[in-house]
Amino acid sequence: MAYTQKFFFLLLSSFAIIRMASAADPDITSDFVLPSNLTAPVDGSFFTFTGIRALVGKPLPPNFKVTKVSMAELPALNGQSVSFAALEFPAGTTNPPHTHPRSAELLFLIQGSLQVGFVDTTNKLFSQTLQTGDMFVFPKGLVHFQYNADAQNPAIALSAFGSASAGTVSLPATLFTTSIDDTILAKAFKTDVATIQALKSGLAPKP
Amino acid sequence: MAYTQKFFFLLLSSFAIIRMASAADPDITSDFVLPSNLTAPVDGSFFTFTGIRALVGKPLPPNFKVTKVSMAELPALNGQSVSFAALEFPAGTTNPPHTHPRSAELLFLIQGSLQVGFVDTTNKLFSQTLQTGDMFVFPKGLVHFQYNADAQNPAIALSAFGSASAGTVSLPATLFTTSIDDTILAKAFKTDVATIQALKSGLAPKP
Amino acid sequence: MAYTQKFFFLLLSSFAIIRMASAADPDITSDFVLPSNLTAPVDGSFFTFTGIRALVGKPLPPNFKVTKVSMAELPALNGQSVSFAALEFPAGTTNPPHTHPRSAELLFLIQGSLQVGFVDTTNKLFSQTLQTGDMFVFPKGLVHFQYNADAQNPAIALSAFGSASAGTVSLPATLFTTSIDDTILAKAFKTDVATIQALKSGLAPKP
Amino acid sequence: MAYTQKFFFLLLSSFAIIRMASAADPDITSDFVLPSNLTAPVDGSFFTFTGIRALVGKPLPPNFKVTKVSMAELPALNGQSVSFAALEFPAGTTNPPHTHPRSAELLFLIQGSLQVGFVDTTNKLFSQTLQTGDMFVFPKGLVHFQYNADAQNPAIALSAFGSASAGTVSLPATLFTTSIDDTILAKAFKTDVATIQALKSGLAPKP
Amino acid sequence: MAYTQKFFFLLLSSFAIIRMASAADPDITSDFVLPSNLTAPVDGSFFTFTGIRALVGKPLPPNFKVTKVSMAELPALNGQSVSFAALEFPAGTTNPPHTHPRSAELLFLIQGSLQVGFVDTTNKLFSQTLQTGDMFVFPKGLVHFQYNADAQNPAIALSAFGSASAGTVSLPATLFTTSIDDTILAKAFKTDVATIQALKSGLAPKP
Amino acid sequence: MAYTQKFFFLLLSSFAIIRMASAADPDITSDFVLPSNLTAPVDGSFFTFTGIRALVGKPLPPNFKVTKVSMAELPALNGQSVSFAALEFPAGTTNPPHTHPRSAELLFLIQGSLQVGFVDTTNKLFSQTLQTGDMFVFPKGLVHFQYNADAQNPAIALSAFGSASAGTVSLPATLFTTSIDDTILAKAFKTDVATIQALKSGLAPKP
Repeated sequence: MAYTQKFFFLLLSSFAIIRMASAADPDITSDFVLPSNLTAPVDGSFFTFTGIRALVGKPLPPNFKVTKVSMAELPALNGQSVSFAALEFPAGTTNPPHTHPRSAELLFLIQGSLQVGFVDTTNKLFSQTLQTGDMFVFPKGLVHFQYNADAQNPAIALSAFGSASAGTVSLPATLFTTSIDDTILAKAFKTDVATIQALKSGLAPKP
Repeated sequence: MAYTQKFFFLLLSSFAIIRMASAADPDITSDFVLPSNLTAPVDGSFFTFTGIRALVGKPLPPNFKVTKVSMAELPALNGQSVSFAALEFPAGTTNPPHTHPRSAELLFLIQGSLQVGFVDTTNKLFSQTLQTGDMFVFPKGLVHFQYNADAQNPAIALSAFGSASAGTVSLPATLFTTSIDDTILAKAFKTDVATIQALKSGLAPKP
Repeated sequence: MAYTQKFFFLLLSSFAIIRMASAADPDITSDFVLPSNLTAPVDGSFFTFTGIRALVGKPLPPNFKVTKVSMAELPALNGQSVSFAALEFPAGTTNPPHTHPRSAELLFLIQGSLQVGFVDTTNKLFSQTLQTGDMFVFPKGLVHFQYNADAQNPAIALSAFGSASAGTVSLPATLFTTSIDDTILAKAFKTDVATIQALKSGLAPKP
Repeated sequence: MAYTQKFFFLLLSSFAIIRMASAADPDITSDFVLPSNLTAPVDGSFFTFTGIRALVGKPLPPNFKVTKVSMAELPALNGQSVSFAALEFPAGTTNPPHTHPRSAELLFLIQGSLQVGFVDTTNKLFSQTLQTGDMFVFPKGLVHFQYNADAQNPAIALSAFGSASAGTVSLPATLFTTSIDDTILAKAFKTDVATIQALKSGLAPKP
Repeated sequence: MAYTQKFFFLLLSSFAIIRMASAADPDITSDFVLPSNLTAPVDGSFFTFTGIRALVGKPLPPNFKVTKVSMAELPALNGQSVSFAALEFPAGTTNPPHTHPRSAELLFLIQGSLQVGFVDTTNKLFSQTLQTGDMFVFPKGLVHFQYNADAQNPAIALSAFGSASAGTVSLPATLFTTSIDDTILAKAFKTDVATIQALKSGLAPKP
Repeated sequence: MAYTQKFFFLLLSSFAIIRMASAADPDITSDFVLPSNLTAPVDGSFFTFTGIRALVGKPLPPNFKVTKVSMAELPALNGQSVSFAALEFPAGTTNPPHTHPRSAELLFLIQGSLQVGFVDTTNKLFSQTLQTGDMFVFPKGLVHFQYNADAQNPAIALSAFGSASAGTVSLPATLFTTSIDDTILAKAFKTDVATIQALKSGLAPKP
């Protein structure tokens, strides 16, 4: 049996249904992409996200909090290559170093001031202190962080991504809460196993 | 002379220097893209846009106004596939029907209420009335508009695009201020030349 | 439950089956893409479109007419990033201003003469009168039109698109036959509601 | 010196000016791309190709002939991802097996009849005999050919490509006119060196 | 019924389930893509391919042999835009001229020496003799070949592709084992039908 | 002055010459991309990399070492979307956790055994122990590492990337050698400033 035929058989039996459902940011060949289980006719509400409405005018949470509006939360974003995240920084809090594997980030500071920075692939740090109304771009795939150094006042930012599903890799959690072997981490960070275990303990979820 | 050689000669003589400088949204193969005339070393300010800062807390302009933060205003966006626009709607004003040829738009309503809508390629209208904090996605390349129906209060929105240079085609201006022949427009809109001329007159820049 | 897991569950339950079926112009990873309901083995006829054959040598229709050969009409185009449209212009007819949200258009004038034009995002009109055998490119996403100014002779053109599903946004229909609010349109076009209603009435489908 | 800095120095000294001028089919971030040596303001003629006009109504050449209208002939196609080729087949002539490395091909038969075929990556041949007005799609990157089997009448076709520069790899010329070693070819085609030399001799340009 | 609605109905009835399952190399919007029939939880083995392990230290096969590790053999490659092939060349054997329709190839010579070459679209041959440890890039979509000219020693290479499914078009097989009409081939290669038939006979599978 | 004109002027003055030279992985519209300073005619050596040749049969370096063959080292890779890296692991050494911002990685283990792992965006660790001849794919943009746990024997691997310039973000160096503020790091890793300073000290380059 020829290669292509085998290929299609294999796909038919094993890849069926949802496979490509999770593969998307390419340009689409229709105006938009509809979920298959939609029973009501599509209207303007399909393109609307109201989940942030409740945050308006409310006090900030006690810790840093990110509210994503990506393809998972607003399915109409599928194929549209854009998404948002709302970032709330109580006084003195930080958004730990992280990367977005599938997009750059363009941050707009709605309220407060904010220290931001990213590190490029030559290990050069680029940082800046933003005032309300400023924007800052974190290039694609690079490690970056934000910090509200103000001890009194909160900061609020809205970030845009050029992907409907940018993804987030939080580095403290990725490195020290996922059971990567202590020896590997100790060698990698040129420290001892005890330090690694102390870091892991500090980052572990509290019961 | 072989095809490729001719091709490169042609390029050398006629396409040189800036040609592709204006062609970009593909993924880049460096962390970011630097302008060639940069004399100072690049630091965090290269990735920062402060031009919106001045709008914070200021009264709105008398008419609808869009402030773009794209690759032209913030060169660090080159190759990062994302940009912003700030939209200010005094009471009762509209952002006329338009398209963005190179991106979808995801709008976040910061203040006020807003009627929004778009028309798909089957000529179906999707519209919605947004409250403060709501988001709405206008799919790629489709005609859309926003209208602040509130007679008293302004509305302010921030829109994200999945391109560093989304472009805008304003339809009233494109159709009726660009000297497309009156006869063609009259036939296209199934009306008479006098109506076309009246529309053109109304949209013409005032001296 | 972790994010990705939830994500896949969500997709499994709600996005299943047809979702990505309508999302495509990316490069494919097979030679071509087969419909799932194909019962006969695929042969050369799957790659052939014969629907234009009937137009050859026939008199033109009374009005402007476009015959598309895109992914909807020729499923083998799926993933191949190319399509055609045949354009028939009886004497004195126009193809009203429109955009293609997903492709540029390259027109070849097979017969007759034709006035063509497009408007760029700076509102500059580029127009040209074509003779038989000429080609004209309408850049991606911009408003364009064609007009057969000859009062006696028809014109026939064949247009190529760099997408299997370029889409068409006809501006008279999009703006004035889709129940966009009269007030919004009057403000946008700087005219009165009566003029908008007259335009809508002229463009409304005749019973 | 850091990696990025070295990288940019390297680029500055060695890749300068025309390098990326030849790299393009990605979406562009402007409406169109202008050559740098343009002295006159750009108007509609920049988007027009008149080189085919001369072929209209003329007798066909004695041999198969292809007239390309790609980015090299019509620079306005740069970044627009579409191009054309006009194909003229005198009676009994063939367009030898070839591939286009950067695009699928959608052929429209304007006049005559034509045998067409392609071979997929499983070595399956798909062929068809086209009548005037028919279309046939040759998938991306696959070997294909056309043959006007009619001993009396010419055939004329217009082919569209989803790239501004699809490229052509003619297989007889590529294999047997480019001084690939006779031994390698004899082993590859499981024949003897004499047969390879005879094929090369037959395909060599005549003085 | 409007165009989009018809379009979705058509898709629902006829394109369902596997259609896009075979279309992929675009960036994905999830970390990776899971087959739907996976019953066990995914772990590291899903991302591992052990099929080459058996070749290590074994004598080479009698003829040239390619072992692909693409999306078909390692489903975790779906959406990751990379794949491998292991190439084994006994003394004096060749990998016949071929193209990969969906990727360039970067070859690394692990053992032995190897003559390699490709032909560009201007019919220029680029060739090189590689030593152990050398790399050579065959550009996207161009005809290329490899030949182990050493009469005594084998050669082993590992090739990388920038696609999870690069595909292979073997030219001797494509041209002379797929029942393309003898007359077409004779005209294309400017030889007689008897020579074509002799080539076909030599390349036909032996019983 | 119109927007596009200003745009081109801006580009002419400030983005000139090298700008896009560093932006590339999109498909190219030529067979390959030539450096502008090439004085000799291009031949097969332009497509060849011989820098690894010297490593063959040599003893391993004392520490983990990566030798990249990307667009910077082999300019012919520009536009071909593929590259290699050779990885040498002396006994007991590790390649610290890192990401590649522009590509997935497909690793082939040429010699020895190797522990490998990556963490997805839900913080799930996927790990595996590879034997000689095995392959493992690290998905796009995710944190991953390799560790040669064998106390006696070295390991050697060859990794392929689906980009000509995948880039590397080494996390120990990015986080702890780039002068990110100690307070920010202490908050992010939920530890104290002393621990951060100890980590920084351990990772600092030795005089």
